[in-house]
Amino acid sequence: MKIDIISLFPKFFNGVFSESILKRAISFDAVEITVYDLREHTTDKHHQADDYLYGGGPGMLLKPMPLFRALDKITAEADTRPVVIFPTPRGKPFQQADADELADQQHLIFICGHYKGIDQRVIDRWVDREYSMGDFVVTGGEVAATAMIDAIVRLLPGVLGDLDSAMSDSFRADRLDCPHYTRPEQCDGLSLPQVLLRGHHRRIKLWRNINSQFLTKKHRPDLIKDSDE
Amino acid sequence: MKIDIISLFPKFFNGVFSESILKRAISFDAVEITVYDLREHTTDKHHQADDYLYGGGPGMLLKPMPLFRALDKITAEADTRPVVIFPTPRGKPFQQADADELADQQHLIFICGHYKGIDQRVIDRWVDREYSMGDFVVTGGEVAATAMIDAIVRLLPGVLGDLDSAMSDSFRADRLDCPHYTRPEQCDGLSLPQVLLRGHHRRIKLWRNINSQFLTKKHRPDLIKDSDE
Repeated sequence: MKIDIISLFPKFFNGVFSESILKRAISFDAVEITVYDLREHTTDKHHQADDYLYGGGPGMLLKPMPLFRALDKITAEADTRPVVIFPTPRGKPFQQADADELADQQHLIFICGHYKGIDQRVIDRWVDREYSMGDFVVTGGEVAATAMIDAIVRLLPGVLGDLDSAMSDSFRADRLDCPHYTRPEQCDGLSLPQVLLRGHHRRIKLWRNINSQFLTKKHRPDLIKDSDE
Repeated sequence: MKIDIISLFPKFFNGVFSESILKRAISFDAVEITVYDLREHTTDKHHQADDYLYGGGPGMLLKPMPLFRALDKITAEADTRPVVIFPTPRGKPFQQADADELADQQHLIFICGHYKGIDQRVIDRWVDREYSMGDFVVTGGEVAATAMIDAIVRLLPGVLGDLDSAMSDSFRADRLDCPHYTRPEQCDGLSLPQVLLRGHHRRIKLWRNINSQFLTKKHRPDLIKDSDE
């Protein structure tokens, strides 16, 4: 998979892609990630990437022409039609099913917005998907792009070991994961549920089921379907 | 505000805090962010931070003792009782109201989980808030911690200019922002709604209202209250 990112703050990604799973995925070519500096696609001498809103009002907008130039350049070199994604609070909430589907694509482009966002004409002409990371506001699209890219790349073949892949349980099963414990048996005066120590697999499974249901009801009643009650 | 982060992959944050608004907030002391390397709080010679689950099953868990040691160290030096946050898919969905409330705190600690998460005893003893970034799975808590920290820090006094602050409109008003346009008037053959060029403020306001309502109904019907319909 090829992922291109267009950003006004390309250095944001310096550490992000040199750690953990993303580093591993890049190192064995499961994904090739390129960050394009939006400012390099400005043509005025001050390299201004933003401008005031037509119609007035507070806030600045990323100008359309530098984005058009960056998108033209990236897609001119592309073998397949990329899927262009714009993370924005205006979008559809990004969910596991979106990560699943995007993991099957060959080439993704992420546009990172700032300030009031990007000129609507860029969205009209280029953007295939607008996704929101959640109902809260961050300063720029880089954070949301990182979250979505991480969620997608970990699904690519060979990226996760079997052990890590278990982490996905929570959103495959429509219920939250139960509490977990590891060694030592006693720590800082705290013990653990004795059922987990006895090796009785049916009881362990039952304990985990009950606690998973309890946590789901407590934190995410919205996930519980009628048939579960 | 003071923010401490406990992470197995501290280099993840290298670029994140040296760019954009977070850089600005750190540079004029609105926030002081320290990243603690969890591996430095292990005591065995291989610096192992994870271990198998009690009760069996796939996946590894972050061991409790290194986390207890890191938390003891950070809080021993703290003036006030910090709020300890654990980003996890099991948590309550993080929302703008949570960012607002956390922005009033003096000291926050973020614990970044990996694999199957962290030992439940750390949560029982230390964690004040479990928040989920969204209904999708990422490889580690670093991504979610970054998103939450960005959402909180931008609210600190003096961090955002008036212009940027307008970005928050979407989640203050319970409806999505309308499309925006900036110069040039014609780009790549695309024009813009003529109403925005004519300077008739009442009509511009009406156009923006209608388009904001339209987008909200299309992308986020769940945000629309009965009284709006």
